[in-house]
Amino acid sequence: MEVVAKAPGKIILSGEHAVVHGTTAVASSINLRTSVHLRFSSDGDDILKLELKDMGLEFSWPIGKIKSALPGFDSPDPSTPRACSAESLRCIACLIDEQTIPEAKVALCSGVSAFLWLYTTIHGYKPATVTVTSELPLGSGLGSSAAFCVALAGALHALSPHSGLDYNHHGWSTFGENELELVNKWAFEGEKIIHGKPSGLDNTVSTYGNMIKFRSGELTRLKSNLPLKMLITNTRVGRNTKALVAGVSERKLRHPEAMASVFSAVDSISKELSSIIQIPATDDVAVTEKEEKLQELMEMNQGLLQCMGVSHASIETVLRTTLKYKLPSKLTGAGGGGCVLTLLPTLLSNVLVDKVVAELESYGFQCFIAAIGGNGLEVCFDGSA
Amino acid sequence: MEVVAKAPGKIILSGEHAVVHGTTAVASSINLRTSVHLRFSSDGDDILKLELKDMGLEFSWPIGKIKSALPGFDSPDPSTPRACSAESLRCIACLIDEQTIPEAKVALCSGVSAFLWLYTTIHGYKPATVTVTSELPLGSGLGSSAAFCVALAGALHALSPHSGLDYNHHGWSTFGENELELVNKWAFEGEKIIHGKPSGLDNTVSTYGNMIKFRSGELTRLKSNLPLKMLITNTRVGRNTKALVAGVSERKLRHPEAMASVFSAVDSISKELSSIIQIPATDDVAVTEKEEKLQELMEMNQGLLQCMGVSHASIETVLRTTLKYKLPSKLTGAGGGGCVLTLLPTLLSNVLVDKVVAELESYGFQCFIAAIGGNGLEVCFDGSA
Repeated sequence: MEVVAKAPGKIILSGEHAVVHGTTAVASSINLRTSVHLRFSSDGDDILKLELKDMGLEFSWPIGKIKSALPGFDSPDPSTPRACSAESLRCIACLIDEQTIPEAKVALCSGVSAFLWLYTTIHGYKPATVTVTSELPLGSGLGSSAAFCVALAGALHALSPHSGLDYNHHGWSTFGENELELVNKWAFEGEKIIHGKPSGLDNTVSTYGNMIKFRSGELTRLKSNLPLKMLITNTRVGRNTKALVAGVSERKLRHPEAMASVFSAVDSISKELSSIIQIPATDDVAVTEKEEKLQELMEMNQGLLQCMGVSHASIETVLRTTLKYKLPSKLTGAGGGGCVLTLLPTLLSNVLVDKVVAELESYGFQCFIAAIGGNGLEVCFDGSA
Repeated sequence: MEVVAKAPGKIILSGEHAVVHGTTAVASSINLRTSVHLRFSSDGDDILKLELKDMGLEFSWPIGKIKSALPGFDSPDPSTPRACSAESLRCIACLIDEQTIPEAKVALCSGVSAFLWLYTTIHGYKPATVTVTSELPLGSGLGSSAAFCVALAGALHALSPHSGLDYNHHGWSTFGENELELVNKWAFEGEKIIHGKPSGLDNTVSTYGNMIKFRSGELTRLKSNLPLKMLITNTRVGRNTKALVAGVSERKLRHPEAMASVFSAVDSISKELSSIIQIPATDDVAVTEKEEKLQELMEMNQGLLQCMGVSHASIETVLRTTLKYKLPSKLTGAGGGGCVLTLLPTLLSNVLVDKVVAELESYGFQCFIAAIGGNGLEVCFDGSA
């Protein structure tokens, strides 16, 4: 038995940082995905194997070793997502320590831990080979870890007895609402192993796709009626999200009145943005009008993020570059480096896009062009993926 | 009889644009000045002469010509500032048309008109030579026209019968409150000829010096207790102030809620800034603390100006450059080019300042280092200037 599951990354369209202080934010899926291929072994090979193709890494564990490190999953319960205890995490760490991991890639260990936990709690000690490939850059705020957890949980669920999908179906299919909810919960358990205290936003966007409005921990799914294309520029500048979030809070303490107004402005922007993307555009003119409004809202949001102090020289370079072509941009996620969004209007010429991308790449940045608001988790049984 | 009067330019420390929508702004004088040297002719030379030294321009009018173009000033009243009527302005235009002005410098004509009006209404048909020199770049938002009008009105008043100053005093002296008020009113009449509908802010800062808080047309003089040094970078990018102001108003119409919050944030920043500069700093540590707060407020204000859409690629280049040296900056005035402010902390090394300036100048920008909050109008009779 085998399956491929793919799940998208995400971007924050508006409201990052301010959302920590109680305002609205809007996130969207992007059509850059992580794929997980799961194949149960039929040849009596008593091994669980994990291949991270993009990293050139391969791990394998004799099933017996897993069984003694993580006992109690002879009859796993795939219908009940379980948090990984500190004790289990320590046992998993021992399993990983036995593998050879190059120093530079040790950060991936938490992802491997999440894999071992999800696999074992859903499928127990079944021998299998799991292969992961991804279009998403790691650790750049595009939700690569959530896409991995969702695709993994999706693949694991697809081959569990609780899957409602027809194994003989051809091509890509999607789970029903209840199963998506279950997969999302499993993925969240994986995210907790990787991130400690994730908001749940990344895995929810990756599971359901499209767009999501969130405020004070409450997530509302939005149906976007506007096909939007974004240039995503990865500055490749690593950043410390916790320090950036703390910096905004400190600035709020120093200038409470001004910052309260700034957050309130962001809230208005997120609300306006989410209403624009939900109203269908009737023709090209309407699309262009909406795109211009979104560009303006993004530009405004970027100014407010700069006001919060989370910009960075590399981000400013991207802004200045795209501005030369009259394309406003905004950082997405934590800031201080990371990724920058530039809306590419439908009627924008490809020649111009190529020029912008070439100039950005000349600075050493990495560019992606992504459609936003697309499908969430999808699975395929027949190898047509 | 002769006198030299000098008057400073200004910068907007916080609140430009938002002030149009009813919030608080703070302006400060800078120690870049315009000087006007006035010497009444004693040799029976029946001519009024104006020399604009920095422009390499010289104008001269036979007194008889002025008399027939602008009749009725045989006994001028220097104690009552008078607005220039449209009819008088036309007559002045004829006087100027007779002079040879290079095409590239025609924009200066309104300044020459202001000169003829102020001179004639204060001193009638007295032959004299007036020489103007300035450290201020023209039309860059640093208040060069107001500094000219104030220095001119100051020189004219100093040699009028209403002057309370001792003509035999050595060195620089300043007028009393009532006379400053009168000079300021005269200068405002000059500004009206040059700008149409000036706010009165520029001439008031130039007359009184120090700092001024303004809101809804009301000006409050502040006593700064903090010696601050600013790097002023002139991007040399010309801009259309009216269009920029209109752009902000249009953005407010499109996004009323978000923009109201943005303006409210600017208001809080201006209030905080004006309170910081008024409280005396007791030692270097306190100065550094205040400077850091001001830098943060300037950075925040810049973000909000970007949110209003009045930034420009040239401004972004300045920001990005100073940010490399951990020095935040903000545009000052209308934006869309013009000048950018960078606070230079007291303890900042000159080597670093030189590096920043060199890098900014390599982009073709013009840099000034100015002390802010200094004296307003000053006059000197004895040639020790």
